Amino acid sequence: MTAPPDSALETRRLGLDPALARAVAESLDLGAAEDAVARVLTLTPTDAARLIETLAPHERQALVEAARGRLDPEILSELDEDVRDEVVDLLGPARTGRALAELDTDDAVEVIQGLDEDVQEEVLEAVPAAARADLEESLSYPEDSAGRLMQHGFVAVRESQTVGETIDFLRTARDLPNEFYDLFVLDAERRPVNTVALSRLVRSQRAVRIAEIVEPKAEFATVPAETDQEEVAHLFRRRDLVSAPVVDAVGRMIGVITVDDVVEVIEEEREEDIMRLGGMAETDLNRSVIETTRARFAWLFVNLLTAVLASAVIGLFEQSIEKIVALAVLMPICASMGGNAGTQSLTVVVRGLAMGQISTLNAVRILAKETLVGSVNGALFAVIAGTVAGLWFQDWGLGFVLGAAMVTNLVAAGLAGTLIPLGFHFLKIDPAISSVVFLTTVTDVVGFFAFLGLASWVLL
Amino acid sequence: MTAPPDSALETRRLGLDPALARAVAESLDLGAAEDAVARVLTLTPTDAARLIETLAPHERQALVEAARGRLDPEILSELDEDVRDEVVDLLGPARTGRALAELDTDDAVEVIQGLDEDVQEEVLEAVPAAARADLEESLSYPEDSAGRLMQHGFVAVRESQTVGETIDFLRTARDLPNEFYDLFVLDAERRPVNTVALSRLVRSQRAVRIAEIVEPKAEFATVPAETDQEEVAHLFRRRDLVSAPVVDAVGRMIGVITVDDVVEVIEEEREEDIMRLGGMAETDLNRSVIETTRARFAWLFVNLLTAVLASAVIGLFEQSIEKIVALAVLMPICASMGGNAGTQSLTVVVRGLAMGQISTLNAVRILAKETLVGSVNGALFAVIAGTVAGLWFQDWGLGFVLGAAMVTNLVAAGLAGTLIPLGFHFLKIDPAISSVVFLTTVTDVVGFFAFLGLASWVLL
Repeated sequence: MTAPPDSALETRRLGLDPALARAVAESLDLGAAEDAVARVLTLTPTDAARLIETLAPHERQALVEAARGRLDPEILSELDEDVRDEVVDLLGPARTGRALAELDTDDAVEVIQGLDEDVQEEVLEAVPAAARADLEESLSYPEDSAGRLMQHGFVAVRESQTVGETIDFLRTARDLPNEFYDLFVLDAERRPVNTVALSRLVRSQRAVRIAEIVEPKAEFATVPAETDQEEVAHLFRRRDLVSAPVVDAVGRMIGVITVDDVVEVIEEEREEDIMRLGGMAETDLNRSVIETTRARFAWLFVNLLTAVLASAVIGLFEQSIEKIVALAVLMPICASMGGNAGTQSLTVVVRGLAMGQISTLNAVRILAKETLVGSVNGALFAVIAGTVAGLWFQDWGLGFVLGAAMVTNLVAAGLAGTLIPLGFHFLKIDPAISSVVFLTTVTDVVGFFAFLGLASWVLL
Repeated sequence: MTAPPDSALETRRLGLDPALARAVAESLDLGAAEDAVARVLTLTPTDAARLIETLAPHERQALVEAARGRLDPEILSELDEDVRDEVVDLLGPARTGRALAELDTDDAVEVIQGLDEDVQEEVLEAVPAAARADLEESLSYPEDSAGRLMQHGFVAVRESQTVGETIDFLRTARDLPNEFYDLFVLDAERRPVNTVALSRLVRSQRAVRIAEIVEPKAEFATVPAETDQEEVAHLFRRRDLVSAPVVDAVGRMIGVITVDDVVEVIEEEREEDIMRLGGMAETDLNRSVIETTRARFAWLFVNLLTAVLASAVIGLFEQSIEKIVALAVLMPICASMGGNAGTQSLTVVVRGLAMGQISTLNAVRILAKETLVGSVNGALFAVIAGTVAGLWFQDWGLGFVLGAAMVTNLVAAGLAGTLIPLGFHFLKIDPAISSVVFLTTVTDVVGFFAFLGLASWVLL
């Protein structure tokens, strides 16, 4: 990668050259699958995965069938889950099992845990016995836990060893992991008690004892295998770790988590938060129309109930609307402003909770602040919207009613936007999931009720 | 960290013990600032930063004043930007400058780039000359660029060296970075040409030449200092890097980016995406009421224009509403469903663009899919909502109109939810910023127009 011309940015970002991707697609469409395979074989696994994802299903099938056995198994672990299911189907369990045996445990687990349970078993049976044992151990831990993220291979040392002995051991040992950044000091029960950074090891004289170059105790942390992956990511971030030992129920070291796994977890959690705030369980970019429709239906159905509830509130004031039809024209303004202001508060609070920036210590202060911000913006928009309405309908009473309803709803939005996610957090439910629908229920109901109710009282 | 009881989860997550945080706040309130300082000194820098953020401003002031000079400078780089401004104010430029000199360049740059320009200069003047030169070089690169993320210290080797010579050099060299994971092979012009992983170095015999243990060329990448940090994060993810060399305009190595910087970038970008989708430029959790109000006002003002536009559409049909007041009751349903369905499409597309999963190759396929999903869900909700409306008002014509408007608006939502972010991406504008407001404009206008227009045509 040298200093890129502007168009190369797109390339780097996509991880593959769009022209190359188009050439592969065209070769496949023309039946020249062998050309397509040859091009794909020049790519890194991540780039190949991105390319395979952007192909149409029939192109994907032609590619996988022509390539059988020659594609890098790592591509499998890099694929989006929906596309991966398709590719595993095309490969069949036997071929998939052999491919998995070539991957690190953590990557193989990532592939296998996403498969349907019956496919999972067939694939596992096809994995050679040695690798299978590691896989089955990892799979025995809960989904999204440290046990599933870890690699089984790690380098253990004793405190009494010297640097020289350690380097001699590393030079002759077989079966070491491909890459490692820390050595782990284990006690007699194989419990990890400390780490030695490789950069510390190579800078020390041969006669120095490992005990003298271990990291400060305060920085040391072990990760129980059941720990949720989000907690693991927090730990890595808090201590700027590059690797951490994973321990079983009695504290024995069984594997290691490295920072590249953590980067993936952070990306996953980011995706989850964004999707949940957008009203979905997970991204469905590469999912079929039927499954996408089904998954999104549930959320829309909940939203329909909310909308009907809002309509019921409006229905209470049918007679007022019949008398002053301008009410119908203006009523969405107040509800819409409340929804948007509430979403702002909600987004800040959901994010603050996820990042551990909100605790019992400052929750009340944040609630007070959000309510105050709602009042001030409410007052400002009361004046603006009230003036607009007054001029529009030449009716300053109507303008006053809209302004008063605006303040009410923006204060309600600040309160609800803070209290709803705090409440879910307190109940140990992810606040990102359903906060939005509860919030818009509040801002719609309060918005319509305040505006139409005040209008009925003041203007009629 | 041993296997934690359930309540310890919260502790680990927040990065600090809530009881400890409360004790610190109480000590400060009671004037026992020395006790508070003593407790804070036991924490890691990240934990201390989280605690300082959760304190009330007057408590923060008491703590910083009592602690002067004793707090770990790293806390500064871990603080939220708004709280950091406050603390830097309390410390004054001279003290801040001395603290920055103790940090790695990348951390010091993070602190200094967030300060107001005049404060920035005062602080820089207080940094000792040697460290200042490095800081000024980093600051000469654009904000959010690789040049600002990099550390200046790195370990360079030549291909002709042996492993033994390299280790001997590392054992005697001064001024090495605290932690490093790769050695960089430079050519005669100091251009990086390859890397050697430390784990590879320690496993090789002393007589082996560096040239024999370098990483495969295909995996090697250099980062020009002007590269945007998001591109850097993509590169690290695509190649599972732990460090990468940063080069100047002529390709000479000037620093190194490590994976912990990248983890921070990913967190930042995640925050940015979430905030922008929620209608804010950045998080304002720790910002004052006045500044928060001002920052959020702009977005709400744009939303007001949208809402007034929607009202204008309703205004076109005043006469119809006067005749059939049920139209006013039902009209928010169609607009609200469109807004939510559109947000689903939009979220998936914005995320897919950010992750490089959408290109010219599959954009049309995704548009077709989103439109189809909109049609199918539109048809389903047409039946449901139409039935509800028909039963409610005992008017099947009204139910039919609502259903027809629902299909129309959900198809429009799928189209707009895909085309709006694709359009922004094509214009090189971040699609997360303003897609939502454009989308709701479309779904409100189409929703009200389709429902009220059809009603006027069919029912009157």
